[in-house]
Amino acid sequence: MGTSANHPINRPILASIDTEAFRHNLNRVRELAPESKIWSVIKAKSYGHSLEAALVGLESTDGFALLDITDAQWLREHGWQGRILLLEGLFHHNELALADKLQCDLVVHSESQVQWLESYKGRSGHEFNLFLKLNSGMNRLGLRPAQYRVAFHRLHAADYRMHHMTHFANADQVDRSPSVGEQLECFNHAIDGLHAPTSLANSAAILWHRNVLGDWIRPGIMLYGVSPTGIFADIVRSDFQAVMQLRSEIIDIQELKKGEYIGYGGRYQAGEDMRIGVIACGYADGYPRHAEDGTPVWIQAAGSDDQGVICPIAGQVSMDMMTVDLRDAPNAKVGSVVELWGKEIPVDDVAQMSGTIGYELICALAPRVPLEIK
Amino acid sequence: MGTSANHPINRPILASIDTEAFRHNLNRVRELAPESKIWSVIKAKSYGHSLEAALVGLESTDGFALLDITDAQWLREHGWQGRILLLEGLFHHNELALADKLQCDLVVHSESQVQWLESYKGRSGHEFNLFLKLNSGMNRLGLRPAQYRVAFHRLHAADYRMHHMTHFANADQVDRSPSVGEQLECFNHAIDGLHAPTSLANSAAILWHRNVLGDWIRPGIMLYGVSPTGIFADIVRSDFQAVMQLRSEIIDIQELKKGEYIGYGGRYQAGEDMRIGVIACGYADGYPRHAEDGTPVWIQAAGSDDQGVICPIAGQVSMDMMTVDLRDAPNAKVGSVVELWGKEIPVDDVAQMSGTIGYELICALAPRVPLEIK
Repeated sequence: MGTSANHPINRPILASIDTEAFRHNLNRVRELAPESKIWSVIKAKSYGHSLEAALVGLESTDGFALLDITDAQWLREHGWQGRILLLEGLFHHNELALADKLQCDLVVHSESQVQWLESYKGRSGHEFNLFLKLNSGMNRLGLRPAQYRVAFHRLHAADYRMHHMTHFANADQVDRSPSVGEQLECFNHAIDGLHAPTSLANSAAILWHRNVLGDWIRPGIMLYGVSPTGIFADIVRSDFQAVMQLRSEIIDIQELKKGEYIGYGGRYQAGEDMRIGVIACGYADGYPRHAEDGTPVWIQAAGSDDQGVICPIAGQVSMDMMTVDLRDAPNAKVGSVVELWGKEIPVDDVAQMSGTIGYELICALAPRVPLEIK
Repeated sequence: MGTSANHPINRPILASIDTEAFRHNLNRVRELAPESKIWSVIKAKSYGHSLEAALVGLESTDGFALLDITDAQWLREHGWQGRILLLEGLFHHNELALADKLQCDLVVHSESQVQWLESYKGRSGHEFNLFLKLNSGMNRLGLRPAQYRVAFHRLHAADYRMHHMTHFANADQVDRSPSVGEQLECFNHAIDGLHAPTSLANSAAILWHRNVLGDWIRPGIMLYGVSPTGIFADIVRSDFQAVMQLRSEIIDIQELKKGEYIGYGGRYQAGEDMRIGVIACGYADGYPRHAEDGTPVWIQAAGSDDQGVICPIAGQVSMDMMTVDLRDAPNAKVGSVVELWGKEIPVDDVAQMSGTIGYELICALAPRVPLEIK
């Protein structure tokens, strides 16, 4: 960054991943649920943060939970010897031998998956841990209670190590159906008399429903320092730290006259003579095109010791650029460093100004943005 | 796809890139502007379609226009000997030697860039083509008219081959400021008497402002078969073909009772007993989380000869999954192939149901989605 002699030969956009913040956040989760084991959820390339960074920053987790068996393979090839859970289990029966070889634990959410496992003969000696998933009201993945009890008995009889699992639809909200209480009642009824460890809680439940922690918790978004509700204020006192910081630079400055327009569609019109900064970051980098005028950008005009100032977006975000009102940053110039989200601007705040949640933005970081793992 | 013996060991999501459609679209652009040379715009990894696919499908272009000099390097390493234009020019003076070695043409949009070029001494014998960019009213990148004329003379005196360039803010709309006519008037005034080839037209101008084609046109979104306006009906008679097709499969089916809810926040409530399909595609794959209930999904329930049926999304798109109302697809089952966008569902239609434009969706395709180049 900046204009040092080591300036990279590329656009000045960069995402930094702070593995110390990963470590801090995982410790915070342990403090919140000291009795539970932790599946650190790293699907979607660790929510856009890279598997490399997760393996470094979250190495003290009890296990990693993810979707793609190819990601499980990557973890084994890079030395991870702890547990791995495939969160949607197998997509096809031909993955079973590889899952066995990689010693993966499996979620089982459908009758097809039950049948694949019942008829699997080539077991390598690895003791398969299965997390049988109950549909307790979210109606996405999982077996209904009656089916669930039958499947439990069948897989138990086939010598798999059974665990109970469900997922909450509204652990982050109080006024939506089904409630955590309703789902919990369904869960307890479905597993009655079937003794096995349990896994229920996502990030929101770990924060706000401490009665449902169970034996294995599944923190996801909180590990990245982002709020499960989409509102940063909801986690600000819980002491989680942003792991991803997205930075770029001002690449041009325009001096606008009162009445002139900026960008596509002329969405912003200058109310007076003003300076506009053009930043090398657009929606093809993963910044939301929906971001409204006023969305905050942090600008460091006077070198790396500068405390920085927050300036509002002015004009439609385009594919490779965005434009910002520099009236509060008179010293900003071509080459000034900006933070789009991270340490100074919570990604949740950008998401709120764009009608979405932080989850979507961190996952959507584009492949063309270089990652720096610190 | 499907359940053949060759089923890949992975989630069943796949993006296919149709290089024949690229070829067709480029030919259509030539028919629309037979007198102009073509910069095929392939920034943002060819709008999410990959540089590999662009190099195959668009090989008969006159040149490729892009942002990252590392992408220019990739093209040279893979045999491209035609012209390459860096659309934002240099981000830093230390890129100049590499741009020279790679024989890139450069956009020049700022006073800093003018100075870097004036003071560059190490020229390799490559005749630099410069596209000097005028800010004719978009107020994003470019020099104002007075500055522009001075810069033109300075760079011309330094023996660079000069071209005139500007960019339209509203070539896709008629009721916004500045209009194409206003920008064109500014452009013609600024270049008056300065003889050099011109480059003005983006996709929208090529389609709807045939008086501004100039010597080098810059088609982008139209090459991908997507509408510059965000509305597919606007290009349906122009005979462009979708290049990207995003497919996945149904991985589970839920039988809902009347009154039950689906997914996070319980956004969708079943008005009667109904079947719901769970599809292996979510916002971490690049599908928009904003997609409303009713957004179309094409489902092929009965093998590869089936004409398919369009079903509406029901419930909030989550990170790895989405849910669809199967009442119009009674034969749909686990393993049924779905198209999220491409040949059956224009990506513009999905974008419209999500409050954005097709550009954003194709660029946002996630790295975890495998690309198949056909």
